[in-house]
Amino acid sequence: MSIITLTTDFGIKDHFVGATKGKILSEFVEATIIDISHEINKFNTIEASYSISAAYNAFPKGTVHIISVNSERYTNGQHLAMEWDGHYFICADNGILSVLTQKKVPQKIVSISIHDRLNKEATDIDVFVATACHILRGGHLNVIGKEIEDINILTELTPKISEDGKVIRGNIIYVDDFGNCVTNISKKQFEDVGRGRSFTIPFSSRNKINRINKFYGDFSNLNDINDGKALAVFNENGLLEIAIYKSDNKNVGSANSLLGLGYRDAITINFE
Amino acid sequence: MSIITLTTDFGIKDHFVGATKGKILSEFVEATIIDISHEINKFNTIEASYSISAAYNAFPKGTVHIISVNSERYTNGQHLAMEWDGHYFICADNGILSVLTQKKVPQKIVSISIHDRLNKEATDIDVFVATACHILRGGHLNVIGKEIEDINILTELTPKISEDGKVIRGNIIYVDDFGNCVTNISKKQFEDVGRGRSFTIPFSSRNKINRINKFYGDFSNLNDINDGKALAVFNENGLLEIAIYKSDNKNVGSANSLLGLGYRDAITINFE
Amino acid sequence: MSIITLTTDFGIKDHFVGATKGKILSEFVEATIIDISHEINKFNTIEASYSISAAYNAFPKGTVHIISVNSERYTNGQHLAMEWDGHYFICADNGILSVLTQKKVPQKIVSISIHDRLNKEATDIDVFVATACHILRGGHLNVIGKEIEDINILTELTPKISEDGKVIRGNIIYVDDFGNCVTNISKKQFEDVGRGRSFTIPFSSRNKINRINKFYGDFSNLNDINDGKALAVFNENGLLEIAIYKSDNKNVGSANSLLGLGYRDAITINFE
Repeated sequence: MSIITLTTDFGIKDHFVGATKGKILSEFVEATIIDISHEINKFNTIEASYSISAAYNAFPKGTVHIISVNSERYTNGQHLAMEWDGHYFICADNGILSVLTQKKVPQKIVSISIHDRLNKEATDIDVFVATACHILRGGHLNVIGKEIEDINILTELTPKISEDGKVIRGNIIYVDDFGNCVTNISKKQFEDVGRGRSFTIPFSSRNKINRINKFYGDFSNLNDINDGKALAVFNENGLLEIAIYKSDNKNVGSANSLLGLGYRDAITINFE
Repeated sequence: MSIITLTTDFGIKDHFVGATKGKILSEFVEATIIDISHEINKFNTIEASYSISAAYNAFPKGTVHIISVNSERYTNGQHLAMEWDGHYFICADNGILSVLTQKKVPQKIVSISIHDRLNKEATDIDVFVATACHILRGGHLNVIGKEIEDINILTELTPKISEDGKVIRGNIIYVDDFGNCVTNISKKQFEDVGRGRSFTIPFSSRNKINRINKFYGDFSNLNDINDGKALAVFNENGLLEIAIYKSDNKNVGSANSLLGLGYRDAITINFE
Repeated sequence: MSIITLTTDFGIKDHFVGATKGKILSEFVEATIIDISHEINKFNTIEASYSISAAYNAFPKGTVHIISVNSERYTNGQHLAMEWDGHYFICADNGILSVLTQKKVPQKIVSISIHDRLNKEATDIDVFVATACHILRGGHLNVIGKEIEDINILTELTPKISEDGKVIRGNIIYVDDFGNCVTNISKKQFEDVGRGRSFTIPFSSRNKINRINKFYGDFSNLNDINDGKALAVFNENGLLEIAIYKSDNKNVGSANSLLGLGYRDAITINFE
C-alpha cells in the first residue's frame, strides 16, 4: 500500500499534473496516486490548508501527501517533510501545514536538504516527488533533511473571541463548489464558548440563523425543507458551514450568491 | 479485478472526490477507482442517469458503479444497490437507475439498510463506499439490505409518439462538452415508428435536418464537410444527437450556441 | 509496468474519458492510466502537440501515449502508431506528432490498419485503445499496420529568423492555467542565433524584457521580487515563456491578461 495524494494549484488543463504523476511512476511504479485537488486558487495557502486538513484523514495511515501551492523554495525559505498523525506531508514552509500542527504537535518535521543531490534543473515539484518516493521506499525523514521545531503559521485561520465571551468572530476560509461557505469556527470552540446558550449568526441586515443543523437536511419537519433555505451546519471536518439547502450557483443560488458571502468575509456568532 | 466508478456532482475543486477515494482505499486497498464525471450539474438526476447509462457498459462485468447525485437518504426515502446486466449500481432512490431498469428487468435490487452499522457521523457517501467495498469483497446484496421490486422512475426520459404515428416528440436530456445535444429518442424507437419513411427534424424556423448521418463525419462527399454544419446522428449509446460538425463553444459554435438548443428543449421528428 | 496516458479534448464533464478508461481496463486490466489533459481546446492540434511533447518524457520508457484531438480518420486520412525515444504514441495523422519527429527521427511509424478487425460500430478512440493494448501486450507495430516514412507537419510551430540574424520571430503556442505564455522559441535556437549578444523582447509599446531568468523566481535581489512583475524564462521543456511573477488570472493578473498576450500572438527577440 503506497499512496501519494496531490493537492496543487496547477489546474487540470496543463500537462503539469500528468507529468508529476509520470515522475512519481518513473521513481516508484507501484504508487497509487490520488488527486485531492488541482483547482486550489493560485497561490492560495489558506484554501490549500483547508483542503488537505479536510481530506488527509480519509486515507490509510502511511499515505504521503504532497501539497504544491506557492511552493518556491527561494521565497519560502525551505521545503518541509512532516510526519503527523500517522501520515506524511510534503510542502513548502508557507504556513499550509500549520492548520494541522496547531491541533496536535507533529511527530517530526525536517527541512528538506536533498536539493543538491538532484540535477540542477530540478524543480520544486521534483524535490517533492523525490522526497515522497524516498518515504514510500521506507526511508527515514532524517536522511532527507535536518529536524526542526518551528514552522510558519497561517494566523488568518484563528477566530477571535470577545473579552466578555459573548462573541466569536471568524472568517470564511473556503467556498466550496456548491457555493457553501466554510468558516474557521470549530464545533469545539462553539461549544466551549457557547456553553449551551442561545445565539444568532447574522449574515446581512435581513438574514440570520439561530439554529445549527445536526446534518445538512435536518429540519424540524419535512415541510421546512425548502430548496434555497439558508442553514448552518458543522461539516464533516467539524467546522461551521453556512449553506443554502440544495444550493447550486447556476439555478437555485448558493450562500455565496444569495447571501453575498465570500472568501475571507467575517462570520459572527452572538451568544445571549 | 476490482473496479469502482464514480459519477457525482461534487465538482473537482473540493476535497470530496479525493476523500471518497481515500475512504475506498482505506477499506479496500486493491480497488481501481475510475471517474466517470464529477461535473454533473448539481442535483441533476437526468444528467446523471444519462452519464452512467452511457458509460457503464465500457467497463468489465462485475464493476461497481457509485452514483452520488442528490443522494440524501432523508429526502429520497432509501438508498439502493442493484445488480443489473452483470454490473452493480449504488445510488439513492431518486430515479437515476430507472433509465437502466426501463430497458431490462434488473437481477436484483435491495434497499440498503446498513446505516445503523456505521458510526453515527457517517454520510451518504460513506454508506455508498461501505456498500461498494462489501460487493468487491464478494459479499451478497442480501446482506446489505432487503430485496425490493419497485423504484422511482424518471418520467422525463420518455419521448411521446402522436396518435397518428407521424410525430415523435422528445427532449434534449444532455448537452455535452462540445455543445452537442443528446435527445431521449432512441434509434430503435425512430426505426419502429418511422418504418423507413422520409422525415424532417426542425429546430428553428430556418433550420431543419432530413437525414441522419451514419457517423459523425458522414456526408455525401468531402465537399459537404463544413465546420459548423448542423447534423443529426445516433450516438454510441443509440440516442439521437443534434450536433454541429467540429463544434466548439469557443470558436465555431455548437448546436447549443448556434441553434439555440439547450437542456430540456423539445426535439420533434415529423414523418411523412 | 503498463502505463497508458491520455491527452484529449473530451472535457471532463462528459462520460467519454471514463468510458475510454473502462474500455482499456476491459482489454488490459493491469493498465495504469494517467490523464495528461482532457481540456485541450477542441480540435486544437497545436495545444495537443505542446502538451504531449512537454509531458511524455516524465514517464518511464515503454509508456503508451494516446492523443485524441481531432482524430477522425475520415478527415485525417490515417491513424498512426509511432515508436519514438523509447515511448509509443497513437494519434491521427493531423500533425500533432510532428513536433516530436522534427527533433529526432522516429524509430518506427505505422499507418494503423486494424479498423476492419474491430466491429463496425468502433469509434476512433476504440481503434486507439485496441492499438494501445496490443502494444502493452508486447505486440509489434508491424502487426497493427504498414510502416510509413512521412507524416503531416504542423508548420506553425517553427519560428523564423531574419536574414541578418538579428531577429527571431516566434509565436505563442500555449497559454497555461496561470496565464503564462509559452512560445515556440527554444533555448537552443536563442543561444545559436544570439551568441551571447544583448537583446530586447518587446511585447507592447511600453513593456519589454531584456533579461531571461534562470528560473522563475530568479531576480537580482529579493527586493526585485514583485507579484505582478513581467519576466521571461526558459521552461522545463526548453521553450521561452513570458510570465508574470505569481500570476493569477483572477487576482494579480497574468501575461495573458496584463500584457494582452494570447494564443498565436507574435513574440520577437531583437538582438543588438
